[in-house]
Amino acid sequence: MKVVVTGGAGFLGQRLIGALCQRGRLTDAAGRERAIERIVAADQGRCGAPVADPRVSYATGDVADASFIGSLLDGDTDSVFHLAAVVSGEAERDFDLGMRVNLDGTRWLLEACRRQPQAPKLVFASSVAVFGQPLPEVVTDSTMPVPQASYGVQKLAGELLVGDFSRKGFVDGRCVRLPTVVVRPGKPNAAASSFASGIIREPLAGVQAICPVEPSTGMWMSSPSTAVAALVRAHELPASAWGSLRSLNLPGLTATVAQMIEALRQAAGEQVAARVRFQPDEQIARIVRSWPARFDTARARAMGFPQDADFASILRAYMAQYAPAAIR
Amino acid sequence: MKVVVTGGAGFLGQRLIGALCQRGRLTDAAGRERAIERIVAADQGRCGAPVADPRVSYATGDVADASFIGSLLDGDTDSVFHLAAVVSGEAERDFDLGMRVNLDGTRWLLEACRRQPQAPKLVFASSVAVFGQPLPEVVTDSTMPVPQASYGVQKLAGELLVGDFSRKGFVDGRCVRLPTVVVRPGKPNAAASSFASGIIREPLAGVQAICPVEPSTGMWMSSPSTAVAALVRAHELPASAWGSLRSLNLPGLTATVAQMIEALRQAAGEQVAARVRFQPDEQIARIVRSWPARFDTARARAMGFPQDADFASILRAYMAQYAPAAIR
Repeated sequence: MKVVVTGGAGFLGQRLIGALCQRGRLTDAAGRERAIERIVAADQGRCGAPVADPRVSYATGDVADASFIGSLLDGDTDSVFHLAAVVSGEAERDFDLGMRVNLDGTRWLLEACRRQPQAPKLVFASSVAVFGQPLPEVVTDSTMPVPQASYGVQKLAGELLVGDFSRKGFVDGRCVRLPTVVVRPGKPNAAASSFASGIIREPLAGVQAICPVEPSTGMWMSSPSTAVAALVRAHELPASAWGSLRSLNLPGLTATVAQMIEALRQAAGEQVAARVRFQPDEQIARIVRSWPARFDTARARAMGFPQDADFASILRAYMAQYAPAAIR
Repeated sequence: MKVVVTGGAGFLGQRLIGALCQRGRLTDAAGRERAIERIVAADQGRCGAPVADPRVSYATGDVADASFIGSLLDGDTDSVFHLAAVVSGEAERDFDLGMRVNLDGTRWLLEACRRQPQAPKLVFASSVAVFGQPLPEVVTDSTMPVPQASYGVQKLAGELLVGDFSRKGFVDGRCVRLPTVVVRPGKPNAAASSFASGIIREPLAGVQAICPVEPSTGMWMSSPSTAVAALVRAHELPASAWGSLRSLNLPGLTATVAQMIEALRQAAGEQVAARVRFQPDEQIARIVRSWPARFDTARARAMGFPQDADFASILRAYMAQYAPAAIR
């Protein structure tokens, strides 16, 4: 079978492609388990050290370009993982770019799916950013999303389209609302949540990190490996498990910035934890505060989606891979 | 001030234009009450006997054509009422037409608003069709919309865009979810709810009417005059009354098909009521059943939106205007 991963050169895309190569098999829309023969990783650029596997090829282009998307699927695609997006901070700064990539890009991808001879499976990486104030203390599966930033609006509109294209039988879509994924290695990005990785990653690398939000700010989080496992789980479940509700809040865990820094102090020492400096940025803080920090994800748990134990274990897994020397 | 009404040749559009001409004034986005100097009624065609008033002009074109929409607003528009839409049954049959008119049309209109020198007020006629199963017994202001037909998906996506364009300051938008408007005079249309007017209108005109849903089917309804008053109220409220929540469930009343026919029997006699024949149409019934029939519209009532007393009074108002001879 052929699998397309948009945003395939990104951090999560590369992790997902690695996991798919390792699995070797996926269940297609007809319920048959099949060997993965090809993975096409589509992105606007290349990454430093891409997953090297004979099954993986890389395509460079603009996901908001309908003809590029059409050429990727090319009538022979069984499954799509749609991760490409303009992140929250950037979508807020450049409204038109966000609309083009996050909304139009998703729509052209859905249209390309519709043109395949067999409706492919589509896993759409949505976000808890679809939620905004006013919010209950704990967000449940029946909480109404009222996004308060363009990124969340575009993701939610994309979910609606995935849902309707699925209802019409044009695609077999599944939307998962990812928690903030921490700890991301590499460089900061333009997501409003970028600091959540930065306040761990930079201190461990001996660099000062700036935290733009209050220590008491809570966030709903997931480790990279749990996020990737959730994307695969979303793909593997039969359509009947989704029914007419094609969007799902994923399990995660709640941690405040203060708790994250305390975990860093315990794992790597006072000197490392002291490298976080608080410097409020109201534009970022406003977006992050509008996101919910606590969920009851009963539906996702009943559907067998994985969950991290606690932030300390997320931190340990990151340090083991990227900063083993800093472990006390 | 200049007012643009899309769908201005339609039943509700004409009623609204009549009401605006009679009022003569509206409150602009800066809070100033101003005389209405021009009303541009935009639609794909002309209506039989359009509101004739020196302030009203008619423009024929495609609301999904960005250049047509741009020419309507033309840098001097203070207020827009966006009523143009492909109705529910048609949007379900012709998916691409619904996407083009209901989603793209709304988007190009928002972009045209954004290009005005002052952000105009925009009243967007959305629909209770944004809701679908699963639903609570009574829909409240915090019930999550899960549309189960393309029309509702496109309206809800439009609402999301109106909300975000408003948050960005590109427009001062207000989305009102209209109940099914009954009784509409004239011809049936392609809305799945068209029968709700037909089972009253046709019998009163001596014609047999076909009802495609069960007698027990409940619907959430509004009279035409209450719907028009709600559109004007939505426009007149200051932006502060809307806050960050730019979508609103409008007040209405619940009646079942059986109750409507009983009201017809009491008002016009057994012979008239007997002209309704039940002939199930599963495609229509499925769409109508997916809509909620009962609401608690606390927010709209607190905002001063009007409400009909009961179905009998809606029926009496219709008969007084369109079928006075049938009143017993």
